[in-house]
Amino acid sequence: MTEKPDFSAWSCPLPLRSFDQIVMAHGGGGQLSAELVEHLFLPAFGSGAESELLDAADVELPAGSRLVFSTDSYVVRPLFFPGGNIGDLAINGTINDVAMRGAVPLAISAGFILEEGLEMGVLGLVAESMGQASTVAGCPVVTGDTKVVERGKADGLYINTAGVGAIPAGVDIRPSRAQPGDAILVSGTVGDHGVAVMSQREGLEFGTEIRTDSAPLAGLVAAMLAVSREIHVLRDPTRGGVAASLCEIAAAGKVGIEYDETAIPVLDEVAGACSFLGLDPMHIANEGKLVAFVAADHADSVLDAMHEHPLGARAVRIGTVVDAHPGVVAARTRLGATRVVDLPLGEQLPRIC
Amino acid sequence: MTEKPDFSAWSCPLPLRSFDQIVMAHGGGGQLSAELVEHLFLPAFGSGAESELLDAADVELPAGSRLVFSTDSYVVRPLFFPGGNIGDLAINGTINDVAMRGAVPLAISAGFILEEGLEMGVLGLVAESMGQASTVAGCPVVTGDTKVVERGKADGLYINTAGVGAIPAGVDIRPSRAQPGDAILVSGTVGDHGVAVMSQREGLEFGTEIRTDSAPLAGLVAAMLAVSREIHVLRDPTRGGVAASLCEIAAAGKVGIEYDETAIPVLDEVAGACSFLGLDPMHIANEGKLVAFVAADHADSVLDAMHEHPLGARAVRIGTVVDAHPGVVAARTRLGATRVVDLPLGEQLPRIC
Repeated sequence: MTEKPDFSAWSCPLPLRSFDQIVMAHGGGGQLSAELVEHLFLPAFGSGAESELLDAADVELPAGSRLVFSTDSYVVRPLFFPGGNIGDLAINGTINDVAMRGAVPLAISAGFILEEGLEMGVLGLVAESMGQASTVAGCPVVTGDTKVVERGKADGLYINTAGVGAIPAGVDIRPSRAQPGDAILVSGTVGDHGVAVMSQREGLEFGTEIRTDSAPLAGLVAAMLAVSREIHVLRDPTRGGVAASLCEIAAAGKVGIEYDETAIPVLDEVAGACSFLGLDPMHIANEGKLVAFVAADHADSVLDAMHEHPLGARAVRIGTVVDAHPGVVAARTRLGATRVVDLPLGEQLPRIC
Repeated sequence: MTEKPDFSAWSCPLPLRSFDQIVMAHGGGGQLSAELVEHLFLPAFGSGAESELLDAADVELPAGSRLVFSTDSYVVRPLFFPGGNIGDLAINGTINDVAMRGAVPLAISAGFILEEGLEMGVLGLVAESMGQASTVAGCPVVTGDTKVVERGKADGLYINTAGVGAIPAGVDIRPSRAQPGDAILVSGTVGDHGVAVMSQREGLEFGTEIRTDSAPLAGLVAAMLAVSREIHVLRDPTRGGVAASLCEIAAAGKVGIEYDETAIPVLDEVAGACSFLGLDPMHIANEGKLVAFVAADHADSVLDAMHEHPLGARAVRIGTVVDAHPGVVAARTRLGATRVVDLPLGEQLPRIC
C-alpha cells in the first residue's frame, strides 16, 4: 500500500570510492567530503549548484526588491512517506516560509547532519528529491555543508535549509497586518501531511493511501498577488496546523478571528483517520497549503485566482477577522455553537517535519 | 584546569512554565515552542532578534553591494570547551564563511535540533553565547527554528546557522583568483581550536590550558580591504586545517603552492600537544584564523594592516603561489627537503565543529 523506495536501484552518478554507507570521514572536510559534494550532491542538485564550490555563494537580488531570509530544520520520521521524503519537504518548507512574505524565493542552502552508516542510496534519493523540488520551484540550492555524527545519533539524517527571497516593491505581508473585516481563506484540504507521515510511521492503513501535500507555494502566492495587493497576511500552517496559525495571527494582529468549522475542507480519508485516532485536522501539519487574510472586497478575485492554480483548486473562505475578542480565535461548530480555539501546548504528532 | 560552565547559575529571564529540561512539545509549534522563543531565545539574542516574530525576516542590503549566502551545521562534542561553546562557534563560523568572500555579514539565522531532556540551563548559556557573539560581530540573529528529537539523539543539541552578507562594489575574492606570484599569509597561530576541543573531550591536560581561537573575522577582513583590493583569496581554515585550505585553493585556482613549514606560527602548548599525539597542526581546525592570497606588491601593506588588528597580531607570510606543479601543494620542511601535501581523506579529529 505505502511506497517502498528502492534504495538498491539508486546508483551514484560517479563512483564514491566504493563506500556504500556514510563514514565519519565524509564529514571531515577532506577528500571524502569533497567527493560526496562533487559526486553525489552536485549531480543531484543539478545546474543550480555552484560550479565553483564556494563556502558562501553569490545571489542576485532584483533591483527595487527587499531581501527576506528564513530557516527551518527537518527531523521528520520516517525519512520517506507517501508522496514525499525529508528532502523535498526541506526544500518546499523553507521556500514556503519565504513565499509567505510575498517574496520570490531566490536561493536555498542545505546543511546535512548525517548518521554514520547511512546507506548512500538513501542519501542519494533524498538529494535527488531536493534537486527536483528546487527545480520545480525555480529556486536553486547554492551552498551547503555536511557533518557526520556517530551511529545512533541522527535517525539517518537531519536537514537544515535556509532560504533567501525578494519581496517585490509595494508588497507588505505579515501577521500584524491582519485587520477587522479581512476574509480568511485556506488554499485547500487540511491535515494531509501530518496524517500521511503518521500513518507511515505507525503502519496504519486507512483504505486509501493518504499522501503528503508537500509543495512549493511561491507560484500560488504570485498568482494571488497578480490580482490583489490587499493580501495582508499569509501563513503556511505547518506544525500545529491551521488552528495554531490562526491563534498566532490573532495574537500578532491583536484582532479576533471567527471561522466556520463546517467550511474547512478535509479529505474524506483524512477525516476518517482523524476520527479514528481522535485528532482534529485543524491541528495537523500541512506542507503545501496556505492561509490568507485578504481585504473583504478583494476576497472573491483572490479566490478566483487561487482556483485557477493547481495548488489552490479547492481554496475556500473559512472565516473573518472581527473587532470583538482581540487575540482570541472562535470556531462555529457543526452544531451551531461557538468555542474558543487555543494554541495547543505542543503538537498532537511530534516530528512531522 | 578546564572550564566547568555552571549551568545551575543560569536563570531564565522569564519563567518557562517550570520546565527545567527540554520536552518534545518545545519543538511542536505550540505554546511551549512560542514560550521558548519569547522567554529564552529572544532575551538571549538581544535587540537583534525581530520584535515581530516572522518565519522569514527582512534584511536590508546596502545599495551597490552584492549578496552572499552561506550555511554550516555544528555538531561539536563536547558542547563546552576552553574559550567557547557550540553557540559562539556557530555564530563565528558562519560569519567567517561570509567574511571570506570579502563581505560584511548582515544577518544570521539559527536552527536548533534539541535533544529531549536537555537542561534548560545548557540551552540558555549556549543561546546567550550566540547573542554575545552576534553582538560582537555586529550581525544580528534575525530568524530561527527549533525542533526536538527523542532522548539519545542529537548529543544535547546541534545548531545550524546560515548567514547573508554584502560584498562591497569592486571586491572579488574567491579561490579561483589565486595567481602565480601571490603571497600567502596566515593571520596567526594554527591548530588552537582543534586541540582545545580534543583536549577537553579526551580529558587531556598539557600544562597550560589551550583555548579555542573562535572569533569573527569580518573586522580583520575589512581592515585588510581598507589597504588593498588586491586580495585574491581568503579562506578560514576550519576542518582539515590550513593544509586542506591550501590544497583546495591550489585545485580551484589551478596553481602550485609552496610554503615553508618553519614559517607556520604554532603556540608552544599546541606544538607540544600535537607532538605528543602525533598530529600535524597544519591539519587541525581553526575557528578564528584566515589564510590570504595577496598580490606580492601588496603583501607588506596588508600584513601591516593585519598586525594592527587584534586578530591579526601574529600574521605572517608562509609561502607563495607558483607556476610550477599546478594543483599541488609543496612544503619545505625543517630539514630543507620538499614534500607534497595531500588533502587528507577525512579529519584527524572528528566532530571538532
